[in-house]
Order: sequence, then structure tokens, then C-alpha cells
Amino acid sequence: MQAEIITIGDELLIGQVIDTNSAYISKQLNKIGVSVYQMTSIQDDKAHILQALKEAEEKADIIILTGGLGPTKDDITKNTLAEYFNDTLVRDASVLKNIERLWEKKINQPLKQVNIDQALIPSKASVLMNKYGSAPGMWMAKKGKVFISLPGVPFEMKAIMEHEVLPKLKATFKCPFILHTTLLVYGVGESSLAERIEDWEDALPKHIRLAYLPNLGKVRLRLTAKGFDEQLIKNEVQQQIDSLLPLIKNEFFGFEEAESSIEIVLGKQLVKLGKTLAVAESCTGGKIAEQITANAGASAYFKGGLVTYATQSKIDVLGVSKAIIDAHSVVSAQVAEAMAKNALQLFNADYAIATTGNAGPEKGDSNAEVGTVFIAIATKTHVFSEVFNLGNHRVKVINKAVNKAFEMLQKEILKNR
Amino acid sequence: MQAEIITIGDELLIGQVIDTNSAYISKQLNKIGVSVYQMTSIQDDKAHILQALKEAEEKADIIILTGGLGPTKDDITKNTLAEYFNDTLVRDASVLKNIERLWEKKINQPLKQVNIDQALIPSKASVLMNKYGSAPGMWMAKKGKVFISLPGVPFEMKAIMEHEVLPKLKATFKCPFILHTTLLVYGVGESSLAERIEDWEDALPKHIRLAYLPNLGKVRLRLTAKGFDEQLIKNEVQQQIDSLLPLIKNEFFGFEEAESSIEIVLGKQLVKLGKTLAVAESCTGGKIAEQITANAGASAYFKGGLVTYATQSKIDVLGVSKAIIDAHSVVSAQVAEAMAKNALQLFNADYAIATTGNAGPEKGDSNAEVGTVFIAIATKTHVFSEVFNLGNHRVKVINKAVNKAFEMLQKEILKNR
Repeated sequence: MQAEIITIGDELLIGQVIDTNSAYISKQLNKIGVSVYQMTSIQDDKAHILQALKEAEEKADIIILTGGLGPTKDDITKNTLAEYFNDTLVRDASVLKNIERLWEKKINQPLKQVNIDQALIPSKASVLMNKYGSAPGMWMAKKGKVFISLPGVPFEMKAIMEHEVLPKLKATFKCPFILHTTLLVYGVGESSLAERIEDWEDALPKHIRLAYLPNLGKVRLRLTAKGFDEQLIKNEVQQQIDSLLPLIKNEFFGFEEAESSIEIVLGKQLVKLGKTLAVAESCTGGKIAEQITANAGASAYFKGGLVTYATQSKIDVLGVSKAIIDAHSVVSAQVAEAMAKNALQLFNADYAIATTGNAGPEKGDSNAEVGTVFIAIATKTHVFSEVFNLGNHRVKVINKAVNKAFEMLQKEILKNR
Repeated sequence: MQAEIITIGDELLIGQVIDTNSAYISKQLNKIGVSVYQMTSIQDDKAHILQALKEAEEKADIIILTGGLGPTKDDITKNTLAEYFNDTLVRDASVLKNIERLWEKKINQPLKQVNIDQALIPSKASVLMNKYGSAPGMWMAKKGKVFISLPGVPFEMKAIMEHEVLPKLKATFKCPFILHTTLLVYGVGESSLAERIEDWEDALPKHIRLAYLPNLGKVRLRLTAKGFDEQLIKNEVQQQIDSLLPLIKNEFFGFEEAESSIEIVLGKQLVKLGKTLAVAESCTGGKIAEQITANAGASAYFKGGLVTYATQSKIDVLGVSKAIIDAHSVVSAQVAEAMAKNALQLFNADYAIATTGNAGPEKGDSNAEVGTVFIAIATKTHVFSEVFNLGNHRVKVINKAVNKAFEMLQKEILKNR
């Protein structure tokens, strides 16, 4: 069962908007056993949409379109879809009712004709109800193939995927089981890793694929297997992992959970241990706190954080002594450790992370080279720090520092369990 | 001049990685007058890559591929490209020298055969040197069309685009001028806006396209024009904007700069005024600080911030009085305003933003409904707050609150200029 995802919108083609819909949709399709063969982004242009539909129909069983369903003149997906199916638009009573409900609840204005017209759908289409917006999803079948059209607004699209598309696909197609397992590996380069596990890799059975995903100091190793016998697939992949792990025992860090990330793993561990966390950030500027609090349930372990961006605020707000800063510079192990210790106390937490460094592009309040970052971890009993040189690309330096901070905390927690 | 961007990698097709390369590349191409006709993401699969190259060659003049150039067995782009061009791989001395330089500088290990083999390129290709990595970019020409293959690692790809691909494309093709101008409009829905400006929109000349991009309480209106006479294009678009602005004078907020966002605009204004900013965040969890500090130069106006996530930390660290919290609940105008006032003082800033609310999915330390967010702005002379109901989707609530906070501060700054 192969799918193609077609995202429609000039804003994608000029780079104004990054397409996040395709990745979401493919992840969800994989979970129900549907592989994605291709993702295609095209303009709001009738001829191009028609051509893309034709090409997709030749290759894929399931074609999912997003975008171009709004009420304005640049939205042409629905009319183009009707033309492709040689169909006409008819008013759908359930969709109109949904639009009236939304307007009553959220918009204090009478319905306009363009809003009413959003209830027009191709006569051959089934409605995929959009609870959060006026543009309905649509499902159309043709010679055993399915065409699904969804709004481009991510949260509307996601709700329709979850409540309408996935259940309907599961009921329509018999799909295999797809298993992706990703191992997080730190501290060894891609080619050294490949060399070390070469014999193991060469012995992998054909239906288990291996991929290397190197990124900012870590390599993710992904094993992918597919088949109709879920248990068999799981066992086979587990066997391969069992023989891989001894080869990377000092570098293996854990598994990437399907919807997870290191901060979610960390959070779960802290909750389990009944411990709390605080942060004091300089060069990471709040990104550590932001990544932690992006996840529901963070309040169970996250006390809070300080972003002491200016040197003076490290003194005034965080209580780092001016003497330490003068003696060692603001980018130093001593300052990082003082920040972590003080944050621990201020927030009365069990663990604290602190960062101080220079993310660039220019030197700041210290003479530290661009990319130099000190990260400290404080606990109730001790404090320690490490220094990293994280390159000279601002966004990369910040992201790498955030990753390193989470890794250091993770190691500290694991050491004490 | 039309381009197609082909991104290669199973990690994209299973949704493990979001493709940000395509948006970056298309933005850069637009700047030199090259339109992107299609973006295509495909698997690390030889047959599929060959098919995508063939389809792209039929439609586009410039084909840019990213990904699949690494040293491991799942990287097959280079060999496939050689096959497509009926070519063989030869060792390039300049690439090998670059790899040796990188290994000497960064990797304390002898070169392996797989690393040396990264210096193999198709004999018909010109090298696009990769200063940051071992996989070279490649440029191949065929019947007036150009095929460009770049590594998938974003910062390596970006450096090659900037230093090699764009100058070479400009020298090879005569390209038109493309102008995108985006107006930020707040406080009016997409369909109401469309109705209001309908006459203006209908009178737009054919070569100026209008697009609506609604998102979380704002609509971006984008005008796109293309032509060989840069000054003429600019004048024509300016004329259209001049006749549009009176129709949206209460909702027009500013122009979206090419590489800009509201926090960059805000930062520039604050620097110009010589004013500073601090933040105290609860439900936004550090995201306001993170968005501010993601931009170089933030240290010129950003003093720092507090993430007082736990109620107790609002008392202990930020000094909000327990009496106020008990009397009004932690999610209240009074607490938001106290947080902003105290942050202003703590950081000795000219402006402070504070947020307190419930981002969901469940009720927290107060009885406030999920989605309720109070945002306060404090200045040296006054403090005020607004309350918003931002829906029940956690990530959306946080992002909307961040946008609202920046909008409120922007309005306050504009009022006083």
C-alpha cells in the first residue's frame, strides 16, 4: 500500500512556509501500515494540480492533498478536484450546519456567501468533517484508489486525519505492520560507526533496512521492517538489536520513542524518581525551558528557569558574585557552576542545568571564542561542568548546547538510579 | 526559469525529519529570479531517484537534489546520478585535499577508505566545494539544463548554496526579478478581509498575484510580481499597496521582511529607542525568550527572563505576593501584572512582558479554563494586561500567546514613538 502526499500552496514553493504537514501525515500513515512513496509540493495552479493528480494516480494507491480549500480566490483545489473527477459541486447540508455552528460560536458576524460556499463539495465526495474550521475534508474513490483532500491549516488537518482519515483507511485497506526503531548513538562519527558495525550490517536480512542519520554530534541508527505478522517482525528486529548493542555499548544512549525526544525521556525519569528541575540559561536564551514546557505534564517536575542574558542580570537576578565573573569571565566553568547552584536554590529543585557561552556571530561580554559553551549540572550534593566548542553558526550552537545539556543531565540521572 | 527541488531520504518519507532544505533553497532561488515549480521528496531508492530525475528534466530547467551523499551504504545519490548521466566516478584531487584538511582539523583518526571514497565524483561533474563536510556538491549540465546535487545536512547545503550554487546560477542564466511583499494584517478574518478588498483585488493586473495566508489570528497578504525591469515591478507593486492600505488602515501592522519576524522588528525598534526588555513567563515556558534570543544582536536590548512555571516559583523567585495569588488565582490579570512589574524591576528593564495561563491539556494550579492566558506589559510608568482564550491545543495556545505578547508590546511601543 503506497501513498503520495501532495501539498498545495505558493507559500511552500517560495519558501515562505515550511511544509510540516507532509511529515505529520506520513508518520500517521506509517503507524497504520501505509508507506509513503513520494511527497510533492506544488503551486496553486490548476494545470499543475491536474498533472500532479495524474502522476500520483499512476504510482500510489492513496493520494492525500492538503491546502487550497480556503474561502478566497487563490484557493482552487476543490474546483480542480471536481474537474479531475469530471464532477460538479453540490451543497452539503452537514457541512453547512458545521459552518453555522462555528460562526455562532466564534465569529460575531453574519455568514457571508463565501463562507456558505465552503459547504459546496464534489457530488462524488464523502465529507470528512472539520470540527475546527469551515473547509471540509473530502474523500473520493476511483478504481480502487483513494483521493483525500484536507485543509492546509495544520491543526485542522491533524484533527481530520486522526478522527476521520485514519479510521477510514484502516477499514478500507488491509495494511501490513511497519516497524521503525531508532537507536540514539553519541560520541562516534558516522563513518567510524559504519566501519565498526559493517559485518553486522552486511548480515542484515533484506527486509530489514538500516539508515544512518547523523546530526550535531549524534548519529541516529534506524531499523525499518515491514510485514503482515506483527509479532514476527518485532522478534526479528529485536534479535538484530540484541546483536548490535554489544558493538556500541559505550555509545548507545537509548531508543528514540515514536513521538519522543530526549527531554520527554528525561521528564518521565524525573517524574518516576519524584525529582524536580530548574534551569539558568544564558546563551541558550530560554530554549531549554521552552523545549521542556512544550510537553504536557512538564509542571510535574519543572520548577522554572531564569534567562540571564545580560551579564548584570546574572548578578542581580541570579546572585552570581561579581568577583567570580571578574576573576574568570562570564563565559567560564565557575560562572556556569555558580548559575546552576543558585538556580537550584532559588527554585528549590533537585537538579539544575546552567549554560553560559557565546553563540555568536560576534564576541559578547567575554573574550570567549564564538561557539564556546560551558554547561553545568547542579544537584543537592554536587555541581560539575563541561566546556564545548560548538562551531560558529548561531542557531546550531544554541541547538547543540541544548542537546548537550539534556545529555549531561541524562547521564547524571542514570548514574544515580 | 523554473526549478525543481528533489530531497532524497527515507527519513523524510517516514516523517522522522521535516524537510527544511526545500524552503531554504526556494527562498534563495527566488531572490535571484528563479521560480520553483515543484518540490519532491523521495526515498533512497535507485529506481525512484532515476524516475524523479526524468520527470524533473521534462518540467524544469534547474534540478537541485539534496541528500544521499554520505559515506554509508544507504547513501546512493552519487552512484545513481552517474548512472543517469551514463558516467563513471573518478577521484577529484581538490575534494580529497578538502577531506584531508577536515580530518586533520576536526577528527583525530586516520582517514578511512569510505572517507577517501567521498572524493569520487562523476567525471562530467564540476565540484561545488563543501568547506564544512566531506561530501562535495556537484554540478552537471545536460542540454541547457542543470543538475545540482548537494549534501542533505542543512548547514553544509546552505554554505554551498551561498558560495557556489547561487553565483554560478546567476552567471549561467539570465533571470527575471521576483518581488514578494507580504503585509501583516491583524484583527480581521480571512473572508471578511477578502470581502472588504474585493474590488481592489479584482482590479489587480494579471502579473501581480495575491495570496492569503491565515494563521493564528493574523492574515498575511502576499503580493508577488515578476519581470525583467526591476524598477517597474517595484513601482507597480508600490502603487497597488498604496491603494490597498487605506482599506485596512486599522488592521495593517507592518511588512514581513524577507528574513524577518515580529520579534526581529520589535528588537530593531527597541535598539533604535535605546530601550531594554525583560520577560516573565509562565504558560509560554521560555518560548518568548527563546524567540528573542534566536536572533543575533538580542543582547543589545534583551536583559533576560524568568520562567516561573511552578506557582511557588512565582512567589519565591519573582516575588509575586502570595496574597495576590490567593485572592485572584495564579491565572489572573493581577498576577500577570505583578509578574511584569517585578520582572521590570528585577532586570532593570524599560519594558517587561509577562504571561500566565493554562496551555492544557488539563487544568493546572488554578481553575482557569484550558486556553485562558493573561498577558501583561509593564513600562516604567504603567502596567496593563489583556486576557485571551486561545483554544485547547497546547502547542497552539503557547504559540498564539507568544504572538499576542509580541503584538501587545509592539502596539505599546508604537503608541509612544
